[in-house]
Amino acid sequence: MKIALAQLNYHIGNFGQNSEKIIAHIEKAKEQGADLIVFSELAVTGYYPHDLLERKEFYERAEQTLQQIAQSCRGIAALVGGPSINPESRGKKLFNSAFFMNDGKIEHVVHKSLLPTYDVFDEYRHFEPNTHFSLIEYKGKKLAVTICEDLWDEQETQNEFGKEKLYKISPLRELAKLNPDLVINLSASPFSYNQEDSRKNILIKNALTYNLPIVYVNQVGAHTELIFDGGSFFLTADGKIPFEMNYFEEDFGIVDTDNPEKREQPKTGYIEKIYKALVLGIRDYFRKMGFKKATLGLSGGIDSALTLVLAVDALGRENVRVLLMPSKYSSDHSVQDAVALAKNMGVQYEIVPIQAMVDAFEAHLAPIFKNLPPDITEENIQARTRGVLVMALSNKFGNILLNTTNKSECAVGYGTLYGDMNGGLSVLGDVYKTDVFRLSRWINRNEEIIPWNTIVKPPSAELRPDQKDTDSLPEYDVLDQILFSYIELNQSPNEIIAKGFDEPTVLRVVRMVNNNEYKRFQAPPILRISSKAFGFGRRMPLVAKYS
Amino acid sequence: MKIALAQLNYHIGNFGQNSEKIIAHIEKAKEQGADLIVFSELAVTGYYPHDLLERKEFYERAEQTLQQIAQSCRGIAALVGGPSINPESRGKKLFNSAFFMNDGKIEHVVHKSLLPTYDVFDEYRHFEPNTHFSLIEYKGKKLAVTICEDLWDEQETQNEFGKEKLYKISPLRELAKLNPDLVINLSASPFSYNQEDSRKNILIKNALTYNLPIVYVNQVGAHTELIFDGGSFFLTADGKIPFEMNYFEEDFGIVDTDNPEKREQPKTGYIEKIYKALVLGIRDYFRKMGFKKATLGLSGGIDSALTLVLAVDALGRENVRVLLMPSKYSSDHSVQDAVALAKNMGVQYEIVPIQAMVDAFEAHLAPIFKNLPPDITEENIQARTRGVLVMALSNKFGNILLNTTNKSECAVGYGTLYGDMNGGLSVLGDVYKTDVFRLSRWINRNEEIIPWNTIVKPPSAELRPDQKDTDSLPEYDVLDQILFSYIELNQSPNEIIAKGFDEPTVLRVVRMVNNNEYKRFQAPPILRISSKAFGFGRRMPLVAKYS
Repeated sequence: MKIALAQLNYHIGNFGQNSEKIIAHIEKAKEQGADLIVFSELAVTGYYPHDLLERKEFYERAEQTLQQIAQSCRGIAALVGGPSINPESRGKKLFNSAFFMNDGKIEHVVHKSLLPTYDVFDEYRHFEPNTHFSLIEYKGKKLAVTICEDLWDEQETQNEFGKEKLYKISPLRELAKLNPDLVINLSASPFSYNQEDSRKNILIKNALTYNLPIVYVNQVGAHTELIFDGGSFFLTADGKIPFEMNYFEEDFGIVDTDNPEKREQPKTGYIEKIYKALVLGIRDYFRKMGFKKATLGLSGGIDSALTLVLAVDALGRENVRVLLMPSKYSSDHSVQDAVALAKNMGVQYEIVPIQAMVDAFEAHLAPIFKNLPPDITEENIQARTRGVLVMALSNKFGNILLNTTNKSECAVGYGTLYGDMNGGLSVLGDVYKTDVFRLSRWINRNEEIIPWNTIVKPPSAELRPDQKDTDSLPEYDVLDQILFSYIELNQSPNEIIAKGFDEPTVLRVVRMVNNNEYKRFQAPPILRISSKAFGFGRRMPLVAKYS
Repeated sequence: MKIALAQLNYHIGNFGQNSEKIIAHIEKAKEQGADLIVFSELAVTGYYPHDLLERKEFYERAEQTLQQIAQSCRGIAALVGGPSINPESRGKKLFNSAFFMNDGKIEHVVHKSLLPTYDVFDEYRHFEPNTHFSLIEYKGKKLAVTICEDLWDEQETQNEFGKEKLYKISPLRELAKLNPDLVINLSASPFSYNQEDSRKNILIKNALTYNLPIVYVNQVGAHTELIFDGGSFFLTADGKIPFEMNYFEEDFGIVDTDNPEKREQPKTGYIEKIYKALVLGIRDYFRKMGFKKATLGLSGGIDSALTLVLAVDALGRENVRVLLMPSKYSSDHSVQDAVALAKNMGVQYEIVPIQAMVDAFEAHLAPIFKNLPPDITEENIQARTRGVLVMALSNKFGNILLNTTNKSECAVGYGTLYGDMNGGLSVLGDVYKTDVFRLSRWINRNEEIIPWNTIVKPPSAELRPDQKDTDSLPEYDVLDQILFSYIELNQSPNEIIAKGFDEPTVLRVVRMVNNNEYKRFQAPPILRISSKAFGFGRRMPLVAKYS
């Protein structure tokens, strides 16, 4: 059977654009002689629509769009992801479904059985799980149609005490009893750099266990925080992947399941993948929000430097404009490095020294502060003055502010709320500082794009004389290992100490993470590249006592 | 049987304090001759611990604490809510359980069957649902122990298209088959003013259907956004409530189920309930976070005036300090009204005019803005200058900033991000402007606390000459009805227009709500008093096209 894989970038709720794309690809697949074309999970709505699924007008548009697509599906069959109504009078109102379209109509609707409800996933909030299993017969082949998590029945629980399995049923085990010829999986599986192999391994294990080939179609593109990397593939019953599609971009291809064409993807390191993920994340945020132009405050430090490079690569230099806002504590080299980078990147830049505003604030607060010594307050006034300036540029010219805070800072609360924590989108909020260095060096692999001085100098917020990040934080290579253990691995402080880290340091870092939930609560959306990013995939109570 | 109802205020993760409270009440109930004492759902951890439930050290502390409580439980039995391990190798790792303690040990563990996973509830994220039903026999009585939502099997789906039932099983129908004498329900049911009767009605319906008395124990107190109102009660098999406990405060009482003592609660209007809810919400946020002192910007307008009154009632006048930050557009009466209120309330106040800072910003931006006409940018500079000043006061003196934005403004995005949207806690973010007026009049019911001029004058942001809210918004009584229909009732624009509202107005309001998701994403936590508050109970995608 000749199956077309349509790996597309959808826009949540943009039914017109999504259906145009889907219909155009049905036509293309038909012209190229495919028997069937497969789209990804919830293709018609985009994944994930969240509580828009509770709105009547949203569901009705989805239903109309699916009918419209079915009408255009003649001389070829299609599998399209979308929501469907649960006809029972009890249970969640919707199923997460795959619509099998043929001869101008919807012939079968298959529902998802395993509904991920952990980390960034909320599917049981909106969907009823399927419990009935059947195959679709088409052109003499019996198809086992599954949706994303349906093949992840060996998924482990998120709790880090005893790694048991999350799901009680195995959809493919049920379907295998019916003797299918082929498994099809409509997916929406987001990228995370530290789980890059698990997706393929899980699908290979399925293919080998049931001795069945699998057609796997993932969505691509970013929806606010979540970045979908594509990489759809065809997997043979003996666990080989002869045909693999591009990562981080739309792709289309036809596989003859009896005689698959060879198509391999080049191996890339995780740093390059993170780079591509972030560029796609920025680009799609702007494109899908209807924005064109970005701005950011360029300090001469590495975080804003890297953010600028990513922004220019995503949006074009003509759409990025930066503001340099030196204070009396900014070193000369910081300003020089920032200017050098802005020139390297060819972006418009302006310099607005902040001292006059800071002085005005301090003068007007002096009668209230009286003779109290300077403290974090005065540092925050500097950061917030910059926040006002760059937001003014954003408001006046429509340039969306990109936040430049990295994950290490975000974790320990090393940033000023309503100051440098401002922004419409956080670009590096899921990138540890040590990876910020690696990314910057990777960007400079052929030529000096980011001034080397920016990369090699000791990190500093430059909010008081001779300040260094290491005045109040451990070295970043130690800090990031502790943070990774606590956040991604969900290990307890005792477990982290048992790995050989200094006890007071571990306890201090963990305390900083816990005490700064309130700051992260108000942070911008963070592009997610790891298995556990700050934001809606990590839901911690604000008002709580952490032991 | 004599059953003690312990309606307590827990602190999430504060196992020491929670267990002290629980043990002290077990002692008290025993002294007063009770056979059994009932605590609320997840009493040992506080409701709701969110992803702390994924942490090993958190679960272990909960388990140890439950063992400790059991050891102190002699000569009386207790039912205490807490998490327990799912012993199966598949499924979610934890149950949401009720521990029946007697003779110094845990004798039975009953698990929750219906796990709310909608609005603010995420229970299926962490818990496996129970499917086995049995009674607990104690002192010759057969007890049907249920946990909160277990009695809400008639709960409707959140989707507003076809009001079907959410749950497929009825725990009490199963338990009723075993012929219990009494139903006990451990609850954590948050307050919402527009669902105030549904809780009692649902429990009365259960009592009548199965002809069984019900002991209902709710938690009280606020955990960030969620405010639990208590109001525990004993309900007879014929649907009467002879014994009802206090609202919005801790309470304790013993009911003889064969001959219940009469105890009624006074009827209060919804405005008074909202007042009590907000005061409790503020007080518990500060107390449980370890904060004492608050601040806010007092503008002379009604929102900041009401917030100040609520803050003083929650924290005491000695703990509240306000900043008046007039601009050249502030009317004289605004400053006079603000000063009058600060004096009425007896709080420390200072006046810092913002013009010098605003002028400094504008002068330094002039070379960039050139001759572009003034627009929203200049208005935002004023709001953000105030944001910097009041945060400086917060940083210097440790006074937590209270946000004063109301729900109507928050809905339509009528506020400045990093300006007047700042704050550690949003007090009025779930209170529509029309209810802000009602609350203010209620506060003035005996004497002029809020200057009447503040209440009767036309609302204005005072960011440009002669500005009025109605320049860009419909009248608040119209606006709030449209918003309520769209947000709380989840109605489509067409349905709202069909109710008789002006079509262009409805479409404009809906567009404003949808276009401002990005601002609300970065808003402080909002005290929830309605059935649908902004925040984690309403999860809308940021990057989406809304029709």
